[in-house]
Amino acid sequence: MKRIFTLIALIIALISCNNNKPFKSIDNQVNKQDSIVIKNIFNTALTNGQSYQWLDHLSNEIGGRLSGSPESIAAILWSERLMQDLRFDKVWLQDVMVPNWYRGEKETAYFKVNDTLFNVAICALGGSIPTPPEGITREVIEVTSIEEAEQLGEKLRGKIVFFNQPFDDTHIQTFKAYGGCVNMRYSGAKVGGAFGAAGVIVRSLTHNIDDYPHTGAMSYGDLPEDKKIPTAAISTKAANLLSEKLKENPTLKFYFKQSCLTLPDEPSHNVIGELIGTEFPDKIITVGGHIDSWDIGDGAHDDGAGVVQSIEVLRLFKLNGIKPKHTIRCVLFINEENGLRGGKKYAEEAKAKNENHIAALESDSGGFTPRGFTFDASNENAELFLSWKPLLAPYGLHEIEKGHGGADIGPLKSETISLFGYRPDSQRYFDYHHAETDTFDKVNKRELELGAASMASLVYLLDTYLK
Amino acid sequence: MKRIFTLIALIIALISCNNNKPFKSIDNQVNKQDSIVIKNIFNTALTNGQSYQWLDHLSNEIGGRLSGSPESIAAILWSERLMQDLRFDKVWLQDVMVPNWYRGEKETAYFKVNDTLFNVAICALGGSIPTPPEGITREVIEVTSIEEAEQLGEKLRGKIVFFNQPFDDTHIQTFKAYGGCVNMRYSGAKVGGAFGAAGVIVRSLTHNIDDYPHTGAMSYGDLPEDKKIPTAAISTKAANLLSEKLKENPTLKFYFKQSCLTLPDEPSHNVIGELIGTEFPDKIITVGGHIDSWDIGDGAHDDGAGVVQSIEVLRLFKLNGIKPKHTIRCVLFINEENGLRGGKKYAEEAKAKNENHIAALESDSGGFTPRGFTFDASNENAELFLSWKPLLAPYGLHEIEKGHGGADIGPLKSETISLFGYRPDSQRYFDYHHAETDTFDKVNKRELELGAASMASLVYLLDTYLK
Repeated sequence: MKRIFTLIALIIALISCNNNKPFKSIDNQVNKQDSIVIKNIFNTALTNGQSYQWLDHLSNEIGGRLSGSPESIAAILWSERLMQDLRFDKVWLQDVMVPNWYRGEKETAYFKVNDTLFNVAICALGGSIPTPPEGITREVIEVTSIEEAEQLGEKLRGKIVFFNQPFDDTHIQTFKAYGGCVNMRYSGAKVGGAFGAAGVIVRSLTHNIDDYPHTGAMSYGDLPEDKKIPTAAISTKAANLLSEKLKENPTLKFYFKQSCLTLPDEPSHNVIGELIGTEFPDKIITVGGHIDSWDIGDGAHDDGAGVVQSIEVLRLFKLNGIKPKHTIRCVLFINEENGLRGGKKYAEEAKAKNENHIAALESDSGGFTPRGFTFDASNENAELFLSWKPLLAPYGLHEIEKGHGGADIGPLKSETISLFGYRPDSQRYFDYHHAETDTFDKVNKRELELGAASMASLVYLLDTYLK
Repeated sequence: MKRIFTLIALIIALISCNNNKPFKSIDNQVNKQDSIVIKNIFNTALTNGQSYQWLDHLSNEIGGRLSGSPESIAAILWSERLMQDLRFDKVWLQDVMVPNWYRGEKETAYFKVNDTLFNVAICALGGSIPTPPEGITREVIEVTSIEEAEQLGEKLRGKIVFFNQPFDDTHIQTFKAYGGCVNMRYSGAKVGGAFGAAGVIVRSLTHNIDDYPHTGAMSYGDLPEDKKIPTAAISTKAANLLSEKLKENPTLKFYFKQSCLTLPDEPSHNVIGELIGTEFPDKIITVGGHIDSWDIGDGAHDDGAGVVQSIEVLRLFKLNGIKPKHTIRCVLFINEENGLRGGKKYAEEAKAKNENHIAALESDSGGFTPRGFTFDASNENAELFLSWKPLLAPYGLHEIEKGHGGADIGPLKSETISLFGYRPDSQRYFDYHHAETDTFDKVNKRELELGAASMASLVYLLDTYLK
């Protein structure tokens, strides 16, 4: 009897001990074969990768590709053809109607202090109405939050509201700094318009103090037509100068002029290619990025990188002779930047067709060196994913944790699907994000290729272990 | 008796269990207060850092600063003055005699196939002798290793030996790829010279296929004067082209001309500043980088970054009111690139003065985003260092592991000292290393600042816990 007690005590001790290293047994099972496959994926990506050459074409031959633009259609047709040439099992276009906002002539802006004129680097926000053809000239009221603007209320009337909240540089993850400011860009004109302001200018969303304005999506919400006002981003350097000059000259006048237009919606497409699963062809793992970009710059990091990496994932499977059990689908979503119509359409059609989506992975944080993945999944699956950490750590993928999947795959969310976001290093992302500096020369070949291999490795593990 | 057995069994089980999470207790002790201090260090580095502005000055106002050059002296005097202005407790120059190699006129090179001339981007290796004033023109013999050259032996006579081993791109850590090739640059001319070759050209040590030659140190070893031959690096693009053309035209002739000179040794200095310890002023923790750089480019990553980060470490201590128990010394070593005289002198004098050096940290891998630290230390101290992983992980510092400290602090090695190397992400390092592209614009402000804060945090932990 006492021996049994001894045995039970030992078992309890060992079990409680095991709770502190919960995935040991799984690690040991998967380690060997999986680590060989993953090493092969990385080797082929780094020595025989195609993503960098593809991104060169997408960035330099096609360029910026805002939804509805001829460039966006060129990018769609090019990537469809590329997937066909790579002999994916099935390649098709999914029809999506997209907004068609057009920037028009280059914007101009300046302000005057006494007789001195200060030119301001400016660009219209996506979705904004134009100024009158002659531009507008008004006094400026500076605020640092949506709440502050709302409290000022009627005092905004007739003014240009200047949202000037710098990034909080103390966040290590730069997306958190962005998250703390982005509502001013998105909703500034809605709030200003509601109180009769004449226009809204927003400090560019970047850590850098430089002269590049960063565009991005905005929304008037349910504001009636006659309350809509023009809105634009100004460079951080201009924002600092304006703020400084306003202190001494609170009645200085700011001028800006933009001729952007919202045209009727245009037909466009998601681009989809797949490798059909050998065991569970009806269970789908999606990997994707967005084929549209902003019109300034060539969208190399946002999200050319995600596009070429997603195509490369399927190519790396084929190149390494990995025959997936589940169907692996590469989806290049249209209109992430100013509407999310592609992501919504993909999820709608999946639901209508009763498709079984077990996982989705999005790359939309730039083509930088790998740091990890965030996931939105059940606790049970979370345990499984965390057990893969030792397999991924040798490739710099240490940060495997709960978090956001991605905008385009968000509409797929359900009780059962696991959503993943690829998380490269974030330090340089907002140097280029939505600015004319987001160009191919800012992408490092190896960093891009390591990202593609990281994604392919995760998809391989999902295909191997996810039920 | 059986109860005792039960108890022993339980204890054994729990101990063996505890071995798998060895630092739990330490973690819990240090976590709270230390994590606050480290957070403060990062906050001040990111919002009130000076390293980026200093690097701007060092790179753009002073520029490339090879040992013995006027620029190296300007950098030494500037950094001495900076440390004085920052009111470090003590600042001084340590005399060091350094080699004085001078590149001279821009090198030229080409090869001819029939009547077609192909220009080659080339630069002399540091320490090389010049060609005759008219240059040399010889047939080429291509090899991919030192061993292959040695086996060819007498066949090298009168030829230009072409070392053409590309980087192995499958290494995730790019320093491993460099390690696989660097002996060809360092010893190629020694081997070629021993067998009567006329000259040596070496494929540039980079992943990139581009037209920038990468210089670096070479040595003739104990070769007699009359056997020394000129040696240079050629761009990877030129190396690929030359290799291709040699296949069809094995007797093609290669021309190169360089006018470099080795002048007599020059007096120079290590720059040293310190904060004197409040409890153990005689126990020293050194943090440093090297103040010299190559002459092409402005040495922003190699090792301007390490220089400004090391100064910033002491500034961050002062700014955060951290009064170190041990003496913290910032050392800017001269002549890391082509002689290591500064590192040797610092260690010699430390020994002569019987100084007690308990730890040293070197930053000489570029100003890129933080990944971790490698250390060369006793097993007991290794356990302590590994216990800090949870404190450092929130800042992207996941890779805390045994490994190399650094070239400059290497001569300090003893039974008792712990040597550390700061390890930023390595993917982009060899794009710029020793090439004219190693310039300030390749450094990201936040990445540089995060590195300085990472180093300051490690020094803080060493000061707090190291005996």
